[in-house]
Amino acid sequence: MKTTRTQNLIAAALFGALLFTATIACAADPLPSWNDGKAKQSIEAFVEKVTKEGTPNYVPAAERIAVFDNDGTLWAEQPMYFQLLFALDRVKALAPTHPEWKDKEPFASLLKGDLQAALAGGERAMVEIVMATHAGMTSEEFEQIVKDWLATAKHPKFKRPYTECVNQPMVELLAYLRANGFKTFIVSGGGIEFMRPWTEKVYGIPPEQVVGSSIKTKFEMRDGKPVLVRLPEINFIDDKAGKPVGINEYIGRRPIAAFGNSDGDQQMLEWTQAGPGARLMMLVHHDDAIREFAYGAESKIGTFSDALMTEAKTNGWTVISMKNDWKRVFAWGQ
Amino acid sequence: MKTTRTQNLIAAALFGALLFTATIACAADPLPSWNDGKAKQSIEAFVEKVTKEGTPNYVPAAERIAVFDNDGTLWAEQPMYFQLLFALDRVKALAPTHPEWKDKEPFASLLKGDLQAALAGGERAMVEIVMATHAGMTSEEFEQIVKDWLATAKHPKFKRPYTECVNQPMVELLAYLRANGFKTFIVSGGGIEFMRPWTEKVYGIPPEQVVGSSIKTKFEMRDGKPVLVRLPEINFIDDKAGKPVGINEYIGRRPIAAFGNSDGDQQMLEWTQAGPGARLMMLVHHDDAIREFAYGAESKIGTFSDALMTEAKTNGWTVISMKNDWKRVFAWGQ
Repeated sequence: MKTTRTQNLIAAALFGALLFTATIACAADPLPSWNDGKAKQSIEAFVEKVTKEGTPNYVPAAERIAVFDNDGTLWAEQPMYFQLLFALDRVKALAPTHPEWKDKEPFASLLKGDLQAALAGGERAMVEIVMATHAGMTSEEFEQIVKDWLATAKHPKFKRPYTECVNQPMVELLAYLRANGFKTFIVSGGGIEFMRPWTEKVYGIPPEQVVGSSIKTKFEMRDGKPVLVRLPEINFIDDKAGKPVGINEYIGRRPIAAFGNSDGDQQMLEWTQAGPGARLMMLVHHDDAIREFAYGAESKIGTFSDALMTEAKTNGWTVISMKNDWKRVFAWGQ
Repeated sequence: MKTTRTQNLIAAALFGALLFTATIACAADPLPSWNDGKAKQSIEAFVEKVTKEGTPNYVPAAERIAVFDNDGTLWAEQPMYFQLLFALDRVKALAPTHPEWKDKEPFASLLKGDLQAALAGGERAMVEIVMATHAGMTSEEFEQIVKDWLATAKHPKFKRPYTECVNQPMVELLAYLRANGFKTFIVSGGGIEFMRPWTEKVYGIPPEQVVGSSIKTKFEMRDGKPVLVRLPEINFIDDKAGKPVGINEYIGRRPIAAFGNSDGDQQMLEWTQAGPGARLMMLVHHDDAIREFAYGAESKIGTFSDALMTEAKTNGWTVISMKNDWKRVFAWGQ
């Protein structure tokens, strides 16, 4: 009899503890870095709408596809795309084995530290820099080069590794969507193999859910071992009208939610919105010069043109003000 | 006191029922269409090896990637690739709107029913047929065309819809791997958009886990609505040395298990095997003329050359004999 009473007490205590834990879990805000406001509310309202079974806007979990631009949306992109900073560091690292670069543009100017002169050659100069630094090795070698760079390089303003220059509110949003049955994808103009080595750790997005720009690769045998060699030839540019093309090719389903921050994301948001049922389209606006950067229509990268702002208003897309909608920008900062 | 005894009896009965269910679940063979033998044993041994935590061959679930060829591996491919039969039916359906085809090869011969003459033009004739039937519409229109065809067309030998000409043992294998934490992908030489409309229903493989050959698409606005138009231009051929390239581009991880049936899968199996740790490489051999088809080195499609058989032996790949290893081939047959 005594044993039974003890058991009952233990059971009651355990049940109470469970109930208490459940209450905490329910009460915790899954988006703590977002200020209350239209942006946060539109996210919560959308998720509630598409996950409520038996209602007209319900979407089965398998079709809850959410796509995210990377540069400027998930992590910062100023003073320039981080991948470009990687390429510049690679040019310096490779210079000793390329003595001819001393007299060859855009490398000569780059090595003298004159970035503006180096990039004066426009897109052609850019492609030359990318090919010289991203091609010629195997896919495994390139992965290691990216990992090594990320382990040591620091952002010039924030003095932190680039993988810490990620927008904490967006990391929370990714987790919140996944907790509600969504499958989250990156759809970025950046290089697919530049992102895959770290997106799982930093965003919880596995390699197979990363879509990006790419160069061609070639299968060959080296000493009896198969390798994929990276070729100096563009395969796919995942930007602007290329984003819906990339979504269709790599994912094969139309997303129901899309997040971007620039003119490069316009068509991805249009494509997402054109499907039936409830849709969520959002644009991050970098208007926070103190905590991050403030730039818009005048910017050379991550351009948020006046035309995009007009389209956002016309189409009912939500513009996220970094300054007003985010309680903090980075996990380590304010 | 009586209530407590009744409750105890109910609890005991429930517990007994649970135990009984669990016993059934454990006892049930997840691969009932496989005969006991080397093939079935090598699958079970591999799965046990990579899923046992704390052992040297353990692989975390996120990295348990398994890739499957489609034609000849997951579904049949004789008397010719089903997608080619689809294209031939499309030529007939489209002929009234293409009066010029009456005098133009390869269409003229095709419409007269002389397949051999139509395909005498080799690869160029094939590409012409594919482009005439797979391009020119939007991605959504094409999806509907594929679905409509599959709903009515029947296999010439089996007199069943093509989506019922799938290898039941392989469907069980897909489910068995997924139940053990694997992510299953198709990596096929067939058209990616020809497969995606039905692979989820038939194999449990969602669109975003299908890799295949493709033509280019173009984003454009039609009456204010964004569409993707299918262009008559090859984008990617996912066959032979293209398979590891496609795996790297679309999945971004090296598989730990690969399943094929022909020379077109050789490099995919080599690429899979070259990674560290436990690996499983298997080839379906069509040696069952009664229940399905028997073909090998002499075949025009799905060629299983003598060189491939030699490589399989040298590398320790498991060859599945359809005749001996499969208790039944199709869900509806023997």
